Amino acid sequence: MQALRFDPEGLRVVDTPRPSPGMGEVLVRVSMAGICSTDLQITRGYMNYRGTLGHEFVGSVVEGADWEVGTRVVGEINFACRRCAWCKRGLDRHCPHRTVLGIQGAPGCFAEYVIVPAANLHKVPDKVSDQTAVFVEPVAAAFEILEQTQLEPNTRCVVFGDGKLGQVIAQVLHSAGHRVTAVGKYPEKLKLLTELGIPTELFGDYSPTQVPLVVEATGSEGGFEAALASVEPRGSLVLKSTVAAKHTLSLAPLVIHEISVIGSRCGPFAPALDALASGKIQVRPMISNTRILSDGVAAIEEAARSESLKVLLDCQG
Amino acid sequence: MQALRFDPEGLRVVDTPRPSPGMGEVLVRVSMAGICSTDLQITRGYMNYRGTLGHEFVGSVVEGADWEVGTRVVGEINFACRRCAWCKRGLDRHCPHRTVLGIQGAPGCFAEYVIVPAANLHKVPDKVSDQTAVFVEPVAAAFEILEQTQLEPNTRCVVFGDGKLGQVIAQVLHSAGHRVTAVGKYPEKLKLLTELGIPTELFGDYSPTQVPLVVEATGSEGGFEAALASVEPRGSLVLKSTVAAKHTLSLAPLVIHEISVIGSRCGPFAPALDALASGKIQVRPMISNTRILSDGVAAIEEAARSESLKVLLDCQG
Repeated sequence: MQALRFDPEGLRVVDTPRPSPGMGEVLVRVSMAGICSTDLQITRGYMNYRGTLGHEFVGSVVEGADWEVGTRVVGEINFACRRCAWCKRGLDRHCPHRTVLGIQGAPGCFAEYVIVPAANLHKVPDKVSDQTAVFVEPVAAAFEILEQTQLEPNTRCVVFGDGKLGQVIAQVLHSAGHRVTAVGKYPEKLKLLTELGIPTELFGDYSPTQVPLVVEATGSEGGFEAALASVEPRGSLVLKSTVAAKHTLSLAPLVIHEISVIGSRCGPFAPALDALASGKIQVRPMISNTRILSDGVAAIEEAARSESLKVLLDCQG
Repeated sequence: MQALRFDPEGLRVVDTPRPSPGMGEVLVRVSMAGICSTDLQITRGYMNYRGTLGHEFVGSVVEGADWEVGTRVVGEINFACRRCAWCKRGLDRHCPHRTVLGIQGAPGCFAEYVIVPAANLHKVPDKVSDQTAVFVEPVAAAFEILEQTQLEPNTRCVVFGDGKLGQVIAQVLHSAGHRVTAVGKYPEKLKLLTELGIPTELFGDYSPTQVPLVVEATGSEGGFEAALASVEPRGSLVLKSTVAAKHTLSLAPLVIHEISVIGSRCGPFAPALDALASGKIQVRPMISNTRILSDGVAAIEEAARSESLKVLLDCQG
């Protein structure tokens, strides 16, 4: 089968044997996969990962444990041991023995087929298209913010970043009833949010008003301090971007204003699937392009361009 | 009266007129004042403060609103407007219009007399000596950690820093029933905690075990990353040190492990006074020296030495 790999020879599409599911695992035929900024970070050295990239997918069950052949599925990306103290506490996304799809120790989904533990799969409702279902993973990551913060209804929030993750986060906070302002650099990207009734500001014109919740989703190195300046005393700054770079910053404002900086990663799939099925979250306008897997290298390059939002891979194309 | 000032001419003891209390204010005759690391940071440029230093004191009421003359008092250091939305929410320590005793816009307590709003004062119980009462402010700052975090009983905690604030924090967490390890650089300082039944480790010998709560109270620039490495996934790192310097650090571990970094500053005086009155918190062994106010410059120098813990100023000496 074809697979898009990042290894010491660089980023390339290779032919590789179709894998076989082990105990408790399922072989999934990947229909569609989404390119995430984390994939781009990996090609710049993040996590020192080498192997098949990709962790956002929708596909159908081919063979393996517990699932009927042909079922359309999406999959959670943390492959936990399900035996340790973390897993027993329900924190399997933090299992210290986990592998992570296309990020750490588990071959990713930018391939014709992928192996996923049966327990990680979720059935996709018929009315959710492949193009929508492929967004479940980032939408779940946005829902994680609601799980980590106890927000009063109608809380003022500022989301920094108008990229694909920032857009999904702004929509999830908006649909949960909070007063969101999205701050970004690209008018044509912000326009997608304006059309959904979410106020937006261009970064260059934005003068910080302090609010209880700020989300940093720019993926840029300079984002942190601008975001911090927008948090009111006792407020929270949620960090969503994983970047390999180091930041130089002053921590004194954090102490003086008793701000909480909350790291936030993967989230719950169930509410994300519900929100996509009900149409509360609109992802289709964010699709910049769909390319076939054999054009994977060009697709990654396209996803890295500042004007791009989500680039999808048709893995059977 | 004499006062220890930091201004463009440097750090020096000056003669200055005794102040008069305005409406709602009290003139306090300062018996004893404590030198805090924040005072040292101010002499290195932190907060750009110029004026009389000092924010930890015990004294007696001379004249002014609401208080009987002669009452022995300590005082909260944030002088709030008590009218704005923050004050009305009970968050007067974050009042945006506040001045802060000896730190921002309000002459400090390293003087024979100090002006404090009547509402900021707390009566000191007779059985609490001046030498103990002068620690109320840092003990309150340690209690702030319990207010900001919802810890399960018997939570494992690591406190980085064996200085005066770190020692008080380790004691407060220990007395609240948590399993504390204190990590520091100075065996003779750690010994004070060992004698109270708190396990300690020398920084050089310490291999991080990850725990749910870590407190950074080293006041050093390198403290953050060592502290971060000791926080378990979904755990909290409480920042207690206010340092003027910038840090260079990678924020990715924070996101991956969904760690919360919680800035923490001033705390509630009432539980701190109770804990000192009941003997739950032992502060007397931390007093390195007591000097008279006219020796204030030498006292600050002594407080800055690595072997020192708390240096007190006898402000009527």
